[in-house]
Amino acid sequence: MRTSATGARAPRITDVAALAGVSPGTASKALNGTGSLRAETRDRVREAARQLGFTPDSRGRSLSSGRSYAVGLITTDSSGRFSIPVMTGAEDALSAGELMLLLCDTRDDPLRERHYLRTLAARRVDGLIVTGRRTEPREPVQVGVPVVYAFNPSTDPEDMSVVVDDRDGAVQAVQHLLGLGRRRIVHLTGPQRHRSAGDRAAGVVEAAGSALAAEPWFGEWSERLGRQGLDLALRRVPDLDAVVCGSDQIARGVCDRLRELGRSVPGEVAVTGFDNWPVMAEASRPPLTTVDLELTELGRRAAQLLIDAIDGRPHRGLLRLPTRLVARASTLGE
Amino acid sequence: MRTSATGARAPRITDVAALAGVSPGTASKALNGTGSLRAETRDRVREAARQLGFTPDSRGRSLSSGRSYAVGLITTDSSGRFSIPVMTGAEDALSAGELMLLLCDTRDDPLRERHYLRTLAARRVDGLIVTGRRTEPREPVQVGVPVVYAFNPSTDPEDMSVVVDDRDGAVQAVQHLLGLGRRRIVHLTGPQRHRSAGDRAAGVVEAAGSALAAEPWFGEWSERLGRQGLDLALRRVPDLDAVVCGSDQIARGVCDRLRELGRSVPGEVAVTGFDNWPVMAEASRPPLTTVDLELTELGRRAAQLLIDAIDGRPHRGLLRLPTRLVARASTLGE
Repeated sequence: MRTSATGARAPRITDVAALAGVSPGTASKALNGTGSLRAETRDRVREAARQLGFTPDSRGRSLSSGRSYAVGLITTDSSGRFSIPVMTGAEDALSAGELMLLLCDTRDDPLRERHYLRTLAARRVDGLIVTGRRTEPREPVQVGVPVVYAFNPSTDPEDMSVVVDDRDGAVQAVQHLLGLGRRRIVHLTGPQRHRSAGDRAAGVVEAAGSALAAEPWFGEWSERLGRQGLDLALRRVPDLDAVVCGSDQIARGVCDRLRELGRSVPGEVAVTGFDNWPVMAEASRPPLTTVDLELTELGRRAAQLLIDAIDGRPHRGLLRLPTRLVARASTLGE
Repeated sequence: MRTSATGARAPRITDVAALAGVSPGTASKALNGTGSLRAETRDRVREAARQLGFTPDSRGRSLSSGRSYAVGLITTDSSGRFSIPVMTGAEDALSAGELMLLLCDTRDDPLRERHYLRTLAARRVDGLIVTGRRTEPREPVQVGVPVVYAFNPSTDPEDMSVVVDDRDGAVQAVQHLLGLGRRRIVHLTGPQRHRSAGDRAAGVVEAAGSALAAEPWFGEWSERLGRQGLDLALRRVPDLDAVVCGSDQIARGVCDRLRELGRSVPGEVAVTGFDNWPVMAEASRPPLTTVDLELTELGRRAAQLLIDAIDGRPHRGLLRLPTRLVARASTLGE
C-alpha cells in the first residue's frame, strides 16, 4: 500500500526490515508496538528506523484505522480578535491530543463555507469546531462527524455549544461597583441588534436595580461612542458616579472624555470595560477594570468536548462558561 | 484499499457503480474525469454519486498520488497581530489551490516546534510556511519538503523568504512629510535591539538628511513611549514640525500628548505611524497617516511561492515586498 505513496528519498518499512534483519511484518509490529516480540528485536528495529530516518506514515495509519487525526476549524473570521483566542485555545487542546487543526476561514461567505465542508468531508476529518465573531446562534452545519460550536452557538439546542456568559459578566461588573458604594450608574454599549449588547445590558439592569440612573444607551462598539455617549449621559444624569461600558473601546473613550472634562477617574466617576482586550484595557488612562471573556479557555473546552465526542462520549446542549472580573485603576484608583 | 477506511454509513465507489449500472473502474473514471467515456455514462455515474452522497476519499487519492494536499503553518504566535494577517493571506491563497492549512502554534517553544515538525513529517504534508512575530532571521527548519519563511526570514540566504521592506516604508513616510514642507523631523521608535526598529530608523535617517533634527529615539512599542518621548523631543527640539513614529501605538501617544499640550496636529506638528493597525490608526485623534505592511499580501505571496515549489518550480532567496503609505488627517488635516 505504501509503494506508490512514498517519494524516491523516503525510506520504507522494507528498508527498515532489511537493515534490522527481520521481516517487514515484524518491523511493522515492532514500530507499532503490536504483537509479541522479544525486546531486543523491537529495539533493533527501532534503532534501524532511527538510523534511516524512517517516519511511520500517519495517513496510512489513519486510512486503516478509519481515523484521520485531524479536526477542521470553521471560522467566519480568522483575523478577528474573538476568533483568534478561541482558535489558539482549541489548537492547544488538540495538539496535546495529537490531533491537528485544519484552518478554514469562510469570510462569512456561505459558498466558501460549503466548499470547506465538502473538502473537510473528503478529507474525513474526525470532527469540526465552528466559531465566528458574533454570539448570535447560527444554523447547524450538516456533516457526518461530531461538531462543537464555540462562541456562536447552534440554533439546535441538542448540538454541543460552548458560549460566554455575557449576562453574568455584566452582573459581576455592576456588583463590583455597588460594592465600592456607587449608586448612580449608567450603561453605554454597542448596537441593540447584537445579542452580546442585549445580554450585557440585561445583566446590568438586573444587577443594578434602583442604582441604574437611566435606561441603557445602545450605539456602536467604538471609542467615539464612549466620548459622545458620556456627554449625553452627563446631560441626563449630571451626578452619575459610574459608567458600565459594553466594551473596552467604549470605556477607553469614556475615560478620555472624563479626563478632558477634568473629572477624576475613579474619584468622581468609576468606569468598567468589557473584553479585557490588552491594547485597550491596559493602554487606557487609567487602565480599565473589565470583564475577561476567557476565550482561550472557551476554545480549549470546545476542543476537549470534541475529543470526547470523537472518542464516543458525546455531550449535548449549551455550556455557558464563566467570565472573570479583572479589577484595575479605573475603579480602584492607583 | 478503501475497505478498511470507510465507516459503516459511508457509501463506496462500488455502491455508486451498482446504482449507475457500470463497473467500479468505469465509475472511478467518470468521477475522476479520466479515461474516455460517453457523456451519458459520466452523467449517470455522477448523478448516482450525488444521490448516495458519495465523497471521493482525498486521503486515498493523496496516498496513491504521493500528495497529501496539505501545508503546515508553523507560527511562534498565532494570536499576534503580525502573524494573523500573514496566516489569513496564506490560507486564502492555499484554499484557492485546494490545499489546506494545518495550524501549528509553537508559542516560541523549541520543543513544541520539534514536536510539530515530527508530526507534520509523519503526515507527509506537501510543504511548510514558517512565520513569527519578529523580523529577525531565524534558523532554518530541517524537513524534506519545500519551506517558505514569511515575515521572519531564514538565516540561510538560499532559502525562500518573503519579508516586509521596513526601510522603504520609513523612506515613504519621510518623503511624504518633506513633500508637505516639513524640515524639523524627529523619530520615536521601539527597542534598538529589534531589527524592525533599526531598519525603520535607517530609512528615516537616509531619507530625512538634514531635515532630521535629532538622532532617533529608541524606546518601546507603546503609547506611553509616544507621550513621554514627545516631551523629551520637545525639550531638545522645541521647533519640531513632524514626528515619524516607529509604530501606530507610539504615534497615537504622540497625538494625545500634543493635544494635551494644545499643539495642533498637523497644523503645528505632523505625525506619522507605522503598521496601519486599524484600532490604533483609525481611532487616533486625528486618524494616522501610516505605513501599511501589507501582511495579508505577504502571506498570500508566501503561499504562492510554496505552491510553485511543491509543483516543482522552486524559487530561492529573499523577496522583499513593498509597503504602502496610507495618508490620513495626522499629516493632511481634515
